[in-house]
Amino acid sequence: MSLTDAAPAEAARAAKAASHIMATLSADDRNDALLSMHDALAAARDSILAANAKDLELAQREAAEGRLNPSLVSRLDLGRKGKWEDMLQGILDVRTLPDPVGRVTLRTRLDDGLVLDRVTCPIGVLLVIFEARPEVLANIAALAVKSGNAALLKGGKESTQTMLAMATVLADALGKASTVPAAAVQLVTRRDVVQELLALDRDIDLVVPRGSNELVRSIKAGTRIPVLGHADGLCSTFIDTGVVDDAQAASLLLDAKTGYPAACNSLETLLVHEAALGEPAFAAAASALTGAGVTLRCDEASKAALLGLSSLDEAARAKIVDAVDDDFDTEFLSLDLAVKVVPSLDAAIAHINAHGSHHTDAILTPSEANAEKFMAAVDSAGVYWNASTRFADGMRYGFGTEVGISTNKIHSRGPVGLEGLTIYKYKLRGSGQAAGAYGEGKKQYKHESLSL
Amino acid sequence: MSLTDAAPAEAARAAKAASHIMATLSADDRNDALLSMHDALAAARDSILAANAKDLELAQREAAEGRLNPSLVSRLDLGRKGKWEDMLQGILDVRTLPDPVGRVTLRTRLDDGLVLDRVTCPIGVLLVIFEARPEVLANIAALAVKSGNAALLKGGKESTQTMLAMATVLADALGKASTVPAAAVQLVTRRDVVQELLALDRDIDLVVPRGSNELVRSIKAGTRIPVLGHADGLCSTFIDTGVVDDAQAASLLLDAKTGYPAACNSLETLLVHEAALGEPAFAAAASALTGAGVTLRCDEASKAALLGLSSLDEAARAKIVDAVDDDFDTEFLSLDLAVKVVPSLDAAIAHINAHGSHHTDAILTPSEANAEKFMAAVDSAGVYWNASTRFADGMRYGFGTEVGISTNKIHSRGPVGLEGLTIYKYKLRGSGQAAGAYGEGKKQYKHESLSL
Repeated sequence: MSLTDAAPAEAARAAKAASHIMATLSADDRNDALLSMHDALAAARDSILAANAKDLELAQREAAEGRLNPSLVSRLDLGRKGKWEDMLQGILDVRTLPDPVGRVTLRTRLDDGLVLDRVTCPIGVLLVIFEARPEVLANIAALAVKSGNAALLKGGKESTQTMLAMATVLADALGKASTVPAAAVQLVTRRDVVQELLALDRDIDLVVPRGSNELVRSIKAGTRIPVLGHADGLCSTFIDTGVVDDAQAASLLLDAKTGYPAACNSLETLLVHEAALGEPAFAAAASALTGAGVTLRCDEASKAALLGLSSLDEAARAKIVDAVDDDFDTEFLSLDLAVKVVPSLDAAIAHINAHGSHHTDAILTPSEANAEKFMAAVDSAGVYWNASTRFADGMRYGFGTEVGISTNKIHSRGPVGLEGLTIYKYKLRGSGQAAGAYGEGKKQYKHESLSL
Repeated sequence: MSLTDAAPAEAARAAKAASHIMATLSADDRNDALLSMHDALAAARDSILAANAKDLELAQREAAEGRLNPSLVSRLDLGRKGKWEDMLQGILDVRTLPDPVGRVTLRTRLDDGLVLDRVTCPIGVLLVIFEARPEVLANIAALAVKSGNAALLKGGKESTQTMLAMATVLADALGKASTVPAAAVQLVTRRDVVQELLALDRDIDLVVPRGSNELVRSIKAGTRIPVLGHADGLCSTFIDTGVVDDAQAASLLLDAKTGYPAACNSLETLLVHEAALGEPAFAAAASALTGAGVTLRCDEASKAALLGLSSLDEAARAKIVDAVDDDFDTEFLSLDLAVKVVPSLDAAIAHINAHGSHHTDAILTPSEANAEKFMAAVDSAGVYWNASTRFADGMRYGFGTEVGISTNKIHSRGPVGLEGLTIYKYKLRGSGQAAGAYGEGKKQYKHESLSL
């Protein structure tokens, strides 16, 4: 792992050259490198934790003097119970994932002795920008090596000492103890270098920001390199008419809103069919949500309906407030929920497509026809029927890891596993053929699909 | 098909709304619309050709006065033998292609009654910018409808009358005679509108430029919307040592260079292993290429080797000139070929990765090991062993159509068929599950892969 802050263009060029070597390595080569990384970190535990203690000390001082959010301090601490072990285990877990590279996804015999393969391969060079937690360095380095990509890594400055210590250790584990070149994983510590890297669209193929909405938004605005990620997670759920199991609906919505309010897959807007206002599911949901401390920011119709419910006690009523227009375009990331009545399924779909963030949206309905229409028409990465939006997660989907959640409309969408760090190339194996030999009155293509 | 040049933002918003309807249509709906489009155009042949005659007349005048390239004029002519029929047949051909939408590519049982599907779906709204040929309008409209996307189409201004006539006809075929909304395919005629459209990254999901390198380059530089395409096609072929069949090598290289020199998949750089300089394949290739009028722009070593060949006559020798550095970074699109000697396979790979355009590159070699290394290490959409670079083409690959050839490193790479106009969404069909019910000491995910 090199530390080449001085010359970002050279670092990127070196990463690109390393990526061409990475592309030729076998799965065993890459898995061996992961083992080397794991073993080297394990052996250097004390020195890395000592460096981490320095970061922590500085952060505590900064927090005490009001220059740093105190919640950040504990996120820096690699010494917290289980964190170090989890980080190391994470590398081994990535190692055991199926190889995303070299999968043949299409095989066509164009003619005798002329076979076309579409084969998955690494993308090339990733620029990964993340915030404070130092263990992300090990995680991302592992994902890059596993997927055969080179990576330039920029972590939060609060973890600088820890990451430098880890980088030094990993440098030996890669360049010396494995076939992965050292330049394949490079640490970037100076923030101003990031802007220069974001301009290097010839050598850097994909930017992966892992952090706050602001981080993602500023990166997307500042580069022509494709960005894998999402700035917003404004997830909605629509309560259709006829929902029978009100307790289940209430617990599902409670999960979606309160399971982890700061998560991107948390519920931010609740839409209710006007014919469902008097049904028990809506009342039960309102009870459960207000009981859990959720403030319901209601439009007029939903407010009137809720205040008309005899089942809601005073404490619950106090949690029902008037929505302002902006509430329906807001990712609260808190115990706030915008509530709106819509006249129809179509209106719910139109609202979500206009105001949502195309992340994950759900419908609660007994009607299969309505659910299928909702899932076809809502233009989001995840469209759910009778399930909590909180399921939008790479681990929950069974991907074994999560690179990020994408709201892009091309390449990868939704929770992105290792596959999202690959593309494909076409390999054509011939025996001297010229294309001009085919055509009308000449040789004909066979275009025979071959089994994979 | 609407004509909404007046307000690009409204046009894009209308296209987005239409795309949400398109996403719910069945394959039959979309195929029926294609038939309507075909029939309506067929019925309006006379009026469209009359409009085309006006475009032609104006173009001929412009050409006569030196304001238009005369080669453009014939490309405008829809009345040329077979062109009209080909255009109509093209719509029917697209109609018979397999439906790219609704394919389930992953199905996982997360738990009982909780099944995750990854399903292909349209991307949303395409902005397609093409040059003069008016029949491209019908082709692109057909591809958009087939893939369930809405499209804003901007053609070359020389075809304006023809395209307006076609658009009027198609408007009825879509809005009235099919379930595809009229706003799903919109014609843009004013060039200044394009700049405004390229800024609408909220409503437009993908830009597809079909035209010259300059067109693609200027579009890529002027938008944050993903662009599917390639600016350059600098394809190389490396002659390794030991090529036995010199006649075959010569005919393959002749095909690659002279089959259609202006095509993006044509050969522009020939690399030769230094140990292959004295082998018959190189001599035969030089003879064949110079004999076909190709100028060989040679580095010192290749020039010396060629001039030392007794097999080359005077006319051939006259075609051997000194290369300048820029020649190895130039897409000639003419009967010129840069020739360079490299000391090794690794050097050939490094040269191609540094100077090529990541489009299509080939190796001629009897060595499987060398070929496999070349195909793994060369970072291009197409990597060929003993085949002409001219095979890089959607029809030749058997895709039935070609949306474009992409040198992007994400989403679609190489010749792009209908599949490249789709993305996927995750549909989760549950029965009331909350995500918080799963985890340590709670319910466990099954993550059971289901057959598709």
